[in-house]
Parts: sequence; structure tokens; C-alpha cells
Amino acid sequence: MSVITLSTDFGLDDPYVGVMKGVILGINPRVQLVDLTHALSHHLLLEAALILNTAFPYFPRGTIHLAVVDPGVGGERRLIAIQERDSVWVGPDNGLFTLVLKNRPEATIVHLNNAAFFLKMVSSTFHGRDILAPAAAHLSLGVPINEIGKTISDPFLLNISEPEIKDNRLIGRVIWSDHFGNLITNISRETLLPFLSGSGLNIILGSHTITGIHQTYSQGRPGQLMALIGSSGYLEIVCNLGSAAEKMGLQSVVGLKVEVVSC
Amino acid sequence: MSVITLSTDFGLDDPYVGVMKGVILGINPRVQLVDLTHALSHHLLLEAALILNTAFPYFPRGTIHLAVVDPGVGGERRLIAIQERDSVWVGPDNGLFTLVLKNRPEATIVHLNNAAFFLKMVSSTFHGRDILAPAAAHLSLGVPINEIGKTISDPFLLNISEPEIKDNRLIGRVIWSDHFGNLITNISRETLLPFLSGSGLNIILGSHTITGIHQTYSQGRPGQLMALIGSSGYLEIVCNLGSAAEKMGLQSVVGLKVEVVSC
Amino acid sequence: MSVITLSTDFGLDDPYVGVMKGVILGINPRVQLVDLTHALSHHLLLEAALILNTAFPYFPRGTIHLAVVDPGVGGERRLIAIQERDSVWVGPDNGLFTLVLKNRPEATIVHLNNAAFFLKMVSSTFHGRDILAPAAAHLSLGVPINEIGKTISDPFLLNISEPEIKDNRLIGRVIWSDHFGNLITNISRETLLPFLSGSGLNIILGSHTITGIHQTYSQGRPGQLMALIGSSGYLEIVCNLGSAAEKMGLQSVVGLKVEVVSC
Repeated sequence: MSVITLSTDFGLDDPYVGVMKGVILGINPRVQLVDLTHALSHHLLLEAALILNTAFPYFPRGTIHLAVVDPGVGGERRLIAIQERDSVWVGPDNGLFTLVLKNRPEATIVHLNNAAFFLKMVSSTFHGRDILAPAAAHLSLGVPINEIGKTISDPFLLNISEPEIKDNRLIGRVIWSDHFGNLITNISRETLLPFLSGSGLNIILGSHTITGIHQTYSQGRPGQLMALIGSSGYLEIVCNLGSAAEKMGLQSVVGLKVEVVSC
Repeated sequence: MSVITLSTDFGLDDPYVGVMKGVILGINPRVQLVDLTHALSHHLLLEAALILNTAFPYFPRGTIHLAVVDPGVGGERRLIAIQERDSVWVGPDNGLFTLVLKNRPEATIVHLNNAAFFLKMVSSTFHGRDILAPAAAHLSLGVPINEIGKTISDPFLLNISEPEIKDNRLIGRVIWSDHFGNLITNISRETLLPFLSGSGLNIILGSHTITGIHQTYSQGRPGQLMALIGSSGYLEIVCNLGSAAEKMGLQSVVGLKVEVVSC
Repeated sequence: MSVITLSTDFGLDDPYVGVMKGVILGINPRVQLVDLTHALSHHLLLEAALILNTAFPYFPRGTIHLAVVDPGVGGERRLIAIQERDSVWVGPDNGLFTLVLKNRPEATIVHLNNAAFFLKMVSSTFHGRDILAPAAAHLSLGVPINEIGKTISDPFLLNISEPEIKDNRLIGRVIWSDHFGNLITNISRETLLPFLSGSGLNIILGSHTITGIHQTYSQGRPGQLMALIGSSGYLEIVCNLGSAAEKMGLQSVVGLKVEVVSC
């Protein structure tokens, strides 16, 4: 029984996600459908790219990840499928898969241009239903990726800001704020490692300075801002029994500068 | 593996939807369950009727559509099941299925009055769990519709406002505003057709006039109000990279008059 | 095909629930996954305990209920599994299962300390993914509960306020306010029974007095506050075509005193 995950910006109030599932089940009635998130945003494509890249290792081999954040639907942007070994991604070629592709230089990428695998009627505004869902369903049945599209080598990639080191300071960014108000940064465990070997470190974001790295939320006082290596392997700013995002007191926290200083 | 879709006004915060699924799986453990929407409203039964009628063609033959918007639960209203060829609907007889029935004069309709197919304990306030979910589950196992209820021919129907033509103007209404702020009208592609053959057309709603019909969101400038034939085959007022509903600046957009004028 | 339900405080905006499902499907690809609610709160553990206890009887025998409200993740609190006859619960030992355990003195409880059933990498902040999801999946495959952990007999239990009788008044509390604004109390049908035999009763909460017990919402006038025995078998305060919670005019209704007086 293969698995297809769905990640969109459709929300759950409208029937759009359900309709895509109907299309998939019409082609492969035995697939396992898993919602990853339907709260993605075209304003935050990098966040979407991060979520897709973080979630997939926890799914079984052969899982197909269908993602639809597609404000350019019906326009010039291509729809693509990506395969590397047993993992497959399907969605628009607008940067959603930037992190997936960055880590997989060997991946096969195809432009979904074989109309034999589309729904019979293709609208100009809902390619998630008419092209992407059928593609994912056919792939889940074992159709080879080369049959549903033509190989390409120039996928669209987002500009990713990598953490930098300047004057012995490690400078990164908040790239995702989750439902608990945890602030996930672009600083990986590996990048942080040299700063952990000294006698201690401070983390500065906005007007706040956080000392040291904790292991768990409950090591802090209620309401205390803390830093830890989150479950996705990146530095996170969190708040025990509270929301770090709210503590910042800012309209938007994505993009906020995070400085790490040995002391 | 048959499919049961669920559409309710229960929201997803409470366990009510999950409990209905538990009841279904206790009767048919191998069914595929798909959430269509749990954001329906008894204030907007026509919108609910539209969503049910729009979504079902994308599901495989044999799919059973279970819908619960039931403020009259435990009172006089009947619970019904509807079958036409391979499609089945189950829910309260309060107008939810008005559009489904309008397009299917040959459909069989039964009043769910065979208590052998209810849960053993029937509450007076949750017939979705106690009567409708078991009915859908038994139907998904192949129980004939006539065994679970007695045929009726007088289902309750909502008054549907159809678009009208007056003084060469086509006058319709907004009947649904989705999560993106797209305004879906009751003007179908077919109804609009005569107005498309002239040299152009204007669409007037509120204080806004929109010229022409576009094919895709991205044909407009960011923030531009546009008209297009949406993915459900009806005239939609949309906004490229924005919300048409917000642009209207009104508390409620459902019911808003939409005028189409050739020019 | 066994069933695993998921109840968390993760919300649905983040991919955390989907990731737990990925882990489960990697171990048992044929399980049926059902979301119960992802809107639980660590502020309202008693409400969470009630929801878990109310929902499970509607699921088939053998269903495994996975619950994650775990602000103490990575700290001293244990993770446990509970089995009584065919029902299984998996989650943190923080009181979430208080009502489940209260009604099942014979249940087997184990501390999930067998790392052979964890994911290979265990984070310090997401045991739902790394320990609980694998435990639920292995149990759904028939692994005996004693293999995945060591029996314990001292689970953590919340202090439950039971309704009291004082001066011929039955005094209970609101313990859950659902999405419709229905106020569910801790007064069961059985507790209420002696008060139903008289010539009538009044129910007092805040500044409101409600007379009698109704059977259905539609027996009231639109907007009328009413009392009825809800679908979970407990006294509920509801409002026909409206929200009882809103009618109270209070910031928070959970904990509100409910007095029942014969008259």
C-alpha cells in the first residue's frame, strides 16, 4: 500500500483537498493518503520548501509527496515530478522543491507534459486536481516517471540564505514559526557545532539574549526563552509553556536575524 | 475498497468527526474515508448544497457522500439516503441535497427508518453518529438502499435563485466565497455563453466593474479583480495574489448581485 | 485492518501530525488512521481526558488511541501504554488517561522503556514521533504490550472534581465547551436521575436559570438556553441555533459551577 502525502495552501474549509483525494482514489483506490499541512503560503515559499524537506525522511520508502502552492496556475510555470531512489515529489516548478533538490543533485526531474495522464478536462485554475493529483496517483501505481513527462535539468530554485560567520559570530535567520510559536532557524546542528565547544554561547535575536543550549522545554522556567536543537535538527528558539513568537512582540518573525556568539 | 466522504458543520476541534469515522470503521473496516469539509454552516445551506454538488464528480463510482448539517436533529425532519446509478448521498432532509436532486430526477430517495441499521443506543442530539454514519457504512458494504429505508418522493428542497436575463443583462448572485476569497456565482459557463459572443462584456458587482473574462489568475496584475470560469464551471470573481472577497469591503459577500452586460 | 486514532495539541497547520502518521505507516502500512482532535490543550488536561474517555466506545475493538499533549517532553515524565481487553491507549503519563484508568482498575499499564521499539534517533523534544508513534504502530501489528515496556502501577492521575450534593442541590462543573458552544458538564445521566423524578428542576449557572430538561435543540426557541443529556451521556447546556458559551458572556466557561435544584 503506497502513501501519498498532500501539502497545499488550500486550507481545510473548502472541498479542494478532498476533491484532489477523490481524483487520486479514482486512479489508485488502495493508496494511503496523509495530510502534511494545508496551511502553506505563497508568501512564504521558503518555509514551504523547508517543511517539505524536513518531513519526508519520516515517511516509508516509496512515498509520493504532492505539494500545491501555485499562484501561477495556468500561466508559464511548469509542473514537475522529482524522483531520487524511492522518494518522489510532485508539484509546481516555482521553488517549492528548492531544498529537496539542493540535497539531491542526482534526482531525475520531469516536466509533466504527457496529457495522457491528465484528467480529461483540464481547467485553467486547478491543476492540483487536473494534473498533479493524477500524476501522483499514476506514480503510486508504479508508472515510471519518464512516461509522465520529459526530463529537464533547469528547475526553478529559490535563493536560500545560508548562515554566515562574521567576526566570530554565526549569523542566521528564523525561517519558520510553528503553531506553538517555536522559531525554527536555518542554523543546523552541524553549523552550530564549533560554537558549542567553547565555555558557553549567547544567542541574540531582536532585543533578547539567550544563554546556552538546553535539551528540553521543561529545563526552563515557565515563560523562559530558550534555545535548543529542535526535532528537525536545526537551532530553535522556544519558550517553556509559552510562545517564543509572541515573546518577540513583532508582527512577523520569519526572516528575523539570529546571532550566535561564543563567550 | 469503497470511499465515504464526510461533510459537516462540526469543525475539526471536537472529536465528533473522528467518532463518526470510528462508527463507520466498526461496520466496514476497509473503507477509504475522505474529509470534504467540516466548515459548512446551517446559515448557508445553499452553499453546502453547492459544495456537495460540485465535489462529487471527482470521486470514483460507488462513492458514498455523508453530509451532516442538522440543527433540527431529533425533531421532525427526516434522515434520507439518495441513490442514482453509482452515487449515494446520506444526510438530513433539510435541503442539503437540493442541487444533487435537481439534476437527478430519476434518483431513488429513502427515509432512513429501519432501526436495524442504527446504533443500538440512539441519542436525540447526534444522529450523524447514531443513524447516518451506520447507514453510510452499511451502504458501502453493498446493503441495498431499499433495505435501510422506505422510498419517499417529497424531499425538502431549497429555493434556488437562478440567474435571470432582464433588459439584455444577465443577473446572478454570489453563492459561495472560498478560503482564497474567490467569489463563486450561480452563473454557469452555459448561461454565460451568449454574452461571450459579442465584442466584449462588463461584469458589475457592488461598486466594481470588471471587463472581460480571463483564463488564469496570473493574467492579471497583482491585486487586480478579474472574472473567469472557475474550476467548478461557474463564473468566479477572483483577485490575482489577493482576495476578491476582501476587495468588496463588505461584511458578507454571499448573495451579492452580479450583473453581466455585453458591450 | 486495525485503527489508530490520533489526539494531540499540535494543530493542523504544522506537519507534526502528518510526520507521526508517516512513522506509523513505515511500521504498519495497512493501518487505518483517524484524527480525533488536534486542538487539545495542556491548560485543559481534564478536558483532554474527557474527550479521550468519551470517544473510544465508538471505535472498533482493538483500536489504539494515541494521545500527545506533552509539555514535559524530554523531562522526568514517563511515556506509557494502557491495555484493557481490546482497547489500547498510548501517551505521556501526565494525567491524560485519568478517566480511562478510573473506569478500568484491571488495565495493564506499561512504561515505554524498551528502546528497541523507538526510532533509531530519539530527539529530546518530539517523543510523539520518536517513541509514541512507533509504540502505537508496533502494538497495532500485535506486539504484546509487555514487550514494549515494563509494567507499572502508579500512573499519574488528575484530581477530578466529582459532582456533589449539598442541601438537596446537585453541584457540578462545566468541563468542556465544544465548537458549537455546547457546555458539557461532569454530571452524568445517572447522577442526575434522582433530580428528574420530582415535579421539575431548575439548573442555575452564572446569572442564568434554566427550567427542565429538553430532548432536542429544536424544542427550544431560536437563541433559547436549554439543558439536555448530551450525546456523551452527560448534562449539557446548549442554545438552539446559537452558542451557549457565548450566552454566558464570560472569558472562560470551563470550570463554571452548575447547580441542579428540584422544584
